[in-house]
Amino acid sequence: MSTSEKPGKPIANIACLGGGHGLFNTLRSARTIADYVSAIVTVADDGGSSGRIRRELGSLPPGDLRMALAALTKDNERGRMWEEVLQHRFGGSGALKGHALGNFLITGLAQVMGSEMEALDEIGRLLGIEGRVIPMSNEPLDLEAEVLGLEEDPREVVAVRGQVAVASTLGEVRRVKLYPENPPASKEAVEAILNADLVSMGPGSWFSSVIPHLLVPEIVDALNQTKAVKALVLNLVPEPGETAGMSLEHHIHMVRQHCPSLQIDVVIVDLSTMPVASTRRHIDRAAAALGAKVIYRDVREDDNRGRWTDRHNPQKLAAVLREVSGGVKDLPERE
Amino acid sequence: MSTSEKPGKPIANIACLGGGHGLFNTLRSARTIADYVSAIVTVADDGGSSGRIRRELGSLPPGDLRMALAALTKDNERGRMWEEVLQHRFGGSGALKGHALGNFLITGLAQVMGSEMEALDEIGRLLGIEGRVIPMSNEPLDLEAEVLGLEEDPREVVAVRGQVAVASTLGEVRRVKLYPENPPASKEAVEAILNADLVSMGPGSWFSSVIPHLLVPEIVDALNQTKAVKALVLNLVPEPGETAGMSLEHHIHMVRQHCPSLQIDVVIVDLSTMPVASTRRHIDRAAAALGAKVIYRDVREDDNRGRWTDRHNPQKLAAVLREVSGGVKDLPERE
Repeated sequence: MSTSEKPGKPIANIACLGGGHGLFNTLRSARTIADYVSAIVTVADDGGSSGRIRRELGSLPPGDLRMALAALTKDNERGRMWEEVLQHRFGGSGALKGHALGNFLITGLAQVMGSEMEALDEIGRLLGIEGRVIPMSNEPLDLEAEVLGLEEDPREVVAVRGQVAVASTLGEVRRVKLYPENPPASKEAVEAILNADLVSMGPGSWFSSVIPHLLVPEIVDALNQTKAVKALVLNLVPEPGETAGMSLEHHIHMVRQHCPSLQIDVVIVDLSTMPVASTRRHIDRAAAALGAKVIYRDVREDDNRGRWTDRHNPQKLAAVLREVSGGVKDLPERE
Repeated sequence: MSTSEKPGKPIANIACLGGGHGLFNTLRSARTIADYVSAIVTVADDGGSSGRIRRELGSLPPGDLRMALAALTKDNERGRMWEEVLQHRFGGSGALKGHALGNFLITGLAQVMGSEMEALDEIGRLLGIEGRVIPMSNEPLDLEAEVLGLEEDPREVVAVRGQVAVASTLGEVRRVKLYPENPPASKEAVEAILNADLVSMGPGSWFSSVIPHLLVPEIVDALNQTKAVKALVLNLVPEPGETAGMSLEHHIHMVRQHCPSLQIDVVIVDLSTMPVASTRRHIDRAAAALGAKVIYRDVREDDNRGRWTDRHNPQKLAAVLREVSGGVKDLPERE
């Protein structure tokens, strides 16, 4: 095939918003269907290696950025080796135990180059990544949640601060905020959203990886201005802690509650969780408030022994992202 | 100029034995005069970031390897940036303070790839280094010195263990040993010496960076087998601690004492330290015992205000290494 006939992938530019393992999986889908993948990543983590680095050095928490880089490494021997290198955690029983090598690389390189964005671009160049990993904001942020059910009086709202604390709360999360409030978006995140053909939000920890993006005004503006198809990918199961027992409808409702101006195109729900018709009507109504259509598709990984796992299958998710990238108007409710 | 006429540098292959800052400087000279530079590096460091990593993780001490990589980065903007990245030390006031990013990169990559040699080669490839950084042995080693003058009885010999302790001893170092004794050389170090056109030893901390190479039997065998010109570069001044007050002659004598079988070609002494004729005869005699000729050349850095520093000037040293690479038989004692 001559270079001039190189067909490229079905999508030119995709921007994926999220954080943590959810974003990692989406990026694994995205790299197979898009020529260029922009990962837009939350920066409110305060746990583990990231939290220690952030507290010691005052940098952005690098962990979610590192995972996104690892997800976008090339699908060949060297790419897989570097995926492992970025994710590698030091052992022993001393001060380094549990720290991820990629976290050191991002943080140190950012200190030398002057910004996380330059550091991430340099690592991307070295590893031949066809895309870009972008912090949603250049400031480290803190997450705070209003949580119900932690006190004797079930109506009492308690403020829970920090991503780890929010993610593992035993109460019911009602609302989250970022500190500082209304943080500036990174300009690269805004550009990536404006230039995208498809924007995905989720799956992932709803309050700590998905909704934080919607608390950054310039990101919301970009989402409302872009010509991209905007897809919200719901989680397969509620997560213990922050979304324990939360219905699909309520997941969608929470997006609207945190970001009333947001308009999206499509909500992607896994077919295995397809509810009865009356519940589907509630879900449709919640999505309609965001301007979105709901579609049910098989996106779930199985364990090769006929049982579903709690992860999205990258190939299946890629197929659905490709399907919605052509426009959602005529898509059937289920495949 | 067409590729076929590409002249290359004056020396095809140079192998530089040493460690620490001395080796760093020699490599800076070597990269300007040789097409391919092999840095063969001691692995007995137990101080600072290296010592902490070695104790926590059981790896080779990475610091001297890191400095050698940094010395061999390309002399362009990106090369200088990566030199800074490798050497970058984390700040703050926590567990990471003082650790060098390059140490983490070497150690983590070695854990993933299975060996320090593979890790160093991978970093070299990424950064486009025209050469190779090679640990002298694949096992972390310990240095132990017999030291005089630490006890009330000035004849009492005390064993001082560890590179930091040896380098900073207040007594007189009589002899050093490696533990384990007679360690295996890395095969890449042996190959590099056998393939070299020129081998340099020193300058550097005499007992902790130069002599340790001569305590590895396979390295000595390779040095005695290679057709390369072998040059010993003496230090400009005795170092506080391990060589305080030690004469030039005694530096040469110490090489012979630790490695009686070694034959070399030339000993390079800085012109600014050129002693009176009677002392020169002692130096000549010590060098002759190694089969070597002594030459005096200006290799010292000045501070641009007419004062000598204690560092070799890379351009001057390069010129002398180039001079000796053509054979030493007809070289004049002084330039």
